[in-house]
Amino acid sequence: MSQRPEKLPTSETITRQPLSGSRKVYVPGQLHDIQVAMREISVTDTVSHTSGRRTPNTPVTVYDTSGPYTDPSVVIDLQKGLPRLREAWIRDRQDVEDLSDFSSTYCQQRMADRSLDALRFEHIRTPMRAKVGQNVTQLHYARQGIITPEMEYIAIRENQRINELGNDPLAVQHTGNSFGANTPAGYITPEFVRQEVASGRAIIPANINHPESEPMIIGRNFLVKINTNIGNSVVTSSIEEEVEKAVWSCRWGGDTLMDLSTGKNIHETREWIIRNCPVPIGTVPIYQALEKVNGKAENLTWAIFRDTLIEQAEQGVDYFTIHAGVLLRYIPLTAKRVTGIVSRGGSIMAKWCLAHHQENFLYTHFEEICDIMKAYDVAFSLGDGLRPGSIADANDAAQFAELETLGELTKIAWKHDVQVMIEGPGHVPMHMIKANMDKQLAHCDEAPFYTLGPLTTDIAPGYDHITSAIGAAMIGWYGTAMLCYVTPKEHLGLPNKQDVKDGVITYKIAAHAADLAKGHPGAQYRDNALSKARFEFRWDDQFNLSLDPDTARAFHDETLPAEGAKIAHFCSMCGPNFCSMKITQDVRDYAEQQGLTDADGLDKAMADKAREFVEQGSEIYQ
Amino acid sequence: MSQRPEKLPTSETITRQPLSGSRKVYVPGQLHDIQVAMREISVTDTVSHTSGRRTPNTPVTVYDTSGPYTDPSVVIDLQKGLPRLREAWIRDRQDVEDLSDFSSTYCQQRMADRSLDALRFEHIRTPMRAKVGQNVTQLHYARQGIITPEMEYIAIRENQRINELGNDPLAVQHTGNSFGANTPAGYITPEFVRQEVASGRAIIPANINHPESEPMIIGRNFLVKINTNIGNSVVTSSIEEEVEKAVWSCRWGGDTLMDLSTGKNIHETREWIIRNCPVPIGTVPIYQALEKVNGKAENLTWAIFRDTLIEQAEQGVDYFTIHAGVLLRYIPLTAKRVTGIVSRGGSIMAKWCLAHHQENFLYTHFEEICDIMKAYDVAFSLGDGLRPGSIADANDAAQFAELETLGELTKIAWKHDVQVMIEGPGHVPMHMIKANMDKQLAHCDEAPFYTLGPLTTDIAPGYDHITSAIGAAMIGWYGTAMLCYVTPKEHLGLPNKQDVKDGVITYKIAAHAADLAKGHPGAQYRDNALSKARFEFRWDDQFNLSLDPDTARAFHDETLPAEGAKIAHFCSMCGPNFCSMKITQDVRDYAEQQGLTDADGLDKAMADKAREFVEQGSEIYQ
Repeated sequence: MSQRPEKLPTSETITRQPLSGSRKVYVPGQLHDIQVAMREISVTDTVSHTSGRRTPNTPVTVYDTSGPYTDPSVVIDLQKGLPRLREAWIRDRQDVEDLSDFSSTYCQQRMADRSLDALRFEHIRTPMRAKVGQNVTQLHYARQGIITPEMEYIAIRENQRINELGNDPLAVQHTGNSFGANTPAGYITPEFVRQEVASGRAIIPANINHPESEPMIIGRNFLVKINTNIGNSVVTSSIEEEVEKAVWSCRWGGDTLMDLSTGKNIHETREWIIRNCPVPIGTVPIYQALEKVNGKAENLTWAIFRDTLIEQAEQGVDYFTIHAGVLLRYIPLTAKRVTGIVSRGGSIMAKWCLAHHQENFLYTHFEEICDIMKAYDVAFSLGDGLRPGSIADANDAAQFAELETLGELTKIAWKHDVQVMIEGPGHVPMHMIKANMDKQLAHCDEAPFYTLGPLTTDIAPGYDHITSAIGAAMIGWYGTAMLCYVTPKEHLGLPNKQDVKDGVITYKIAAHAADLAKGHPGAQYRDNALSKARFEFRWDDQFNLSLDPDTARAFHDETLPAEGAKIAHFCSMCGPNFCSMKITQDVRDYAEQQGLTDADGLDKAMADKAREFVEQGSEIYQ
Repeated sequence: MSQRPEKLPTSETITRQPLSGSRKVYVPGQLHDIQVAMREISVTDTVSHTSGRRTPNTPVTVYDTSGPYTDPSVVIDLQKGLPRLREAWIRDRQDVEDLSDFSSTYCQQRMADRSLDALRFEHIRTPMRAKVGQNVTQLHYARQGIITPEMEYIAIRENQRINELGNDPLAVQHTGNSFGANTPAGYITPEFVRQEVASGRAIIPANINHPESEPMIIGRNFLVKINTNIGNSVVTSSIEEEVEKAVWSCRWGGDTLMDLSTGKNIHETREWIIRNCPVPIGTVPIYQALEKVNGKAENLTWAIFRDTLIEQAEQGVDYFTIHAGVLLRYIPLTAKRVTGIVSRGGSIMAKWCLAHHQENFLYTHFEEICDIMKAYDVAFSLGDGLRPGSIADANDAAQFAELETLGELTKIAWKHDVQVMIEGPGHVPMHMIKANMDKQLAHCDEAPFYTLGPLTTDIAPGYDHITSAIGAAMIGWYGTAMLCYVTPKEHLGLPNKQDVKDGVITYKIAAHAADLAKGHPGAQYRDNALSKARFEFRWDDQFNLSLDPDTARAFHDETLPAEGAKIAHFCSMCGPNFCSMKITQDVRDYAEQQGLTDADGLDKAMADKAREFVEQGSEIYQ
């Protein structure tokens, strides 16, 4: 047998435990035979400290990207991959065929290479592809008026059961400002999903060869999503580490995952990831194409790239970043930039264009790319190869020239019913962010926007998850559909598992802050439930309702570890005499002891006291 | 001798080393005999990799809050305190007298208590106070048309020597959007400082009994400032730890420091801090007053509070948070809130008001408070006792009712030439933040705004430095003058040294992002210098120019520790073949090798290539 130099994933080390206080729940469909996964956070009773009376609190249901990993009833074997959730739905559409072999030359070579046996995912099936003359994209189905099982799954998933909340006072929320978007009025219906997809305002990345993925949607009028990036580089990381990062990313809230590997065994690494990943996977195919020509950009060819697209599509990649907007005539516009071209794919294509004195082959062959995409339902993520990599370069001519071309390409893709989202910046100071959103909406006919941050200053390497969270929250509010995360390692090195988590939590914050500002239905419920728990000193509930219960609990326990502290009406910030919420409770108890037990009465009791005072005619400043 | 149960600060453990790459520099005044401290970051030469030619880069001068600690030529002895920088300026004004003893009864008791000898700062001087009939506030001087040494110091300090940059291309920056503020046109003059203070739009917190502080200004038309909070609680922390945190906070960029101690030996702890602190100190006097009545809010009296104000003013506290806007009739407006009153001071006053059925004594005695403040030049930080502590409570009637009263009180303080800033929220979703700024400007006649965040969502305890950095950056952009930091421990426990640093760096990011968005003169210089260093792979320069060189360097070295990596044209994120900036450099080198050596020529070279192509008539999509 061959050597095993590569560390492969084993099921023993993968994190399976449900998040603290959570259990997986499944909501059945009405139109289709589906079970939609989400999670329910248990909440303890409110206990009145005057009367001792207990009032139950409703469990809080939240969107869950962690997949079957956190369902203890599901048997997970990384060697076999996740359950193929969508396979039956795909086959029922009767528009695909099973291929007898992989179509890509490169893939065939890799499969035949015995030296790779030791690190290859073993249970590889031959791919499916659209029957001749068929188009299998969700956009195509949507425009036919069809509500697919994927669409119904998404509608139920996005709702988080808010349609069951009724008159729950915690369901009250501020009216938002979504800048005129088509924000859903109450809860989301499958028909609403279909319409948004049909209009191009939303995409459902769901390659027929990635049936393990739980359907999700990227669009301005849905919950703001986040993407995480993993992948090795030639300098570091193994297959085992990358699969770990993928599962870890999903656990904490990553909605999609990009495998940006540039090191060795890119093909085999990706197979392991896709087979075990419950969220859509994106890639940048030009990276692997570059690896095939040993890093020499000038040696790239359309043929190599085309084969790479097919190789990756047949593995199940759900969306491709394609830098088809880096046009030859735009490259001079970057000559005076402070940081030049910071996109890997953009710089590779720029180098190729100049070396050959030819137009970008991704642009010239764009319709052929569409033909490949629609045979598997791979979505475009039209790359922002000319995005600004420094504050100085923000919103310059190069950046916006490319954006206009991406708008042109969007129309072409839509001619083929291929799904499209548009990538965006970058490094942009706060006051220049909205212009990006406005231009993208105008040029790209409201196709979903997918930005990297933006970073709002350059001066904090080591903290760029924060410099960019500011910009990401704002551009999410303005209408961006998906935010690509940035980790503390940005500009400095490859992120490890902790960095992945820091990036995910930070970007969940940005996305949720945007949902609140847009007034997304039900978004504020979790904030209200957590704040109520906080006010009532239900510490475990506060932790369990938060984005990262483990860290919240650990931080609290650093100074107050005893179990008794979990019902204490203070923490170590202020101690028992100074806790403002405890004092507020005392004030309310006092009023309650005056014989009133409801909030209106409390209000009245305090108002009476105040009026007494004024009637006694005390002097105050005028 | 008495026991030493309390760990006291020693000069050996204090961090003295200058930040990596930095040295302290002093810029002399023109109007006054002053030397203004700041720091200069050295930058290595740009080396052309085609020709080898070296071009020097200008060192970057930045604002520095770390004080004499990072000047190796200054001898520091924590037992003696910092040099009394401003003492001569204060005495030269000839409007103060030295008191023979402390005026506060409580202070006299503490000084006479032998059991405290072991933990008391030894070199205590009797305080200064305004001569009878004199008003010693910077506002008073400004309105007299006087440019004090403090004002000139500030003008030079705020400029960061941008007036010496000339035609430096890195001095180019985007035009900002300051929402109609009186943003300085070029660099700042002492007269501009005087005008801003005279108008009430800015304050210079500078108690005559804190001569160790380096003068600074808080105002919309100056650099956005940040405040940090330290202080013990009854649960944890020692004097040594608190002085450590104070020096640490200043090292990393805290512009002012609030000592919010609520535990033991508040008086003595504060003395150690003030004597050793180069930045203004704020307190919330009601905390210590509450400690004096053993935590029973009902037992507070005006007399105790008055004595506490004098006690703290004579130690040298530069600003007091005073919750004079928590009026009796506003308290019922909080009855239905999700999180009630979250301000310690606000809840204490609310409890007192209801217990006594009387108006808030801070409000009724406000003019007497002014009389005390103007004798020492203590500034008001008018407290937002009714700020919202949850998204649900944002922008409610209680919050804005108090804000209106703070506006009323501002006018009264200004009658006495007492400096005022206004505290603000809190927890506010993004779309509701601007309304806070607009209302505050209107009600408070543009007095400086000083907000706590705001946090833009409730769902991330453990990460509230981030949830609030988003809101803080935005409200700083809209015009807030100072941002009170939030650490990862918010809502969970007392922050330790690492939390203080995380909070400081996070809030420096928010403040600087706001400066960029406002188009503050010179703000973008550092971003440009760092990005240039990044693009040229001058790794040490990139680290040294960043807010936290230690962390940036450590993160890089996690995966590429060898010294050779510091000149490598890649990092472990992408490796040598995939680094976009390296590829961009290759592209530019190629053009340079075509015989052109300047940026315009490069632009032309690339444009020529592009034109060639078009002229060759290749077809492209229309």
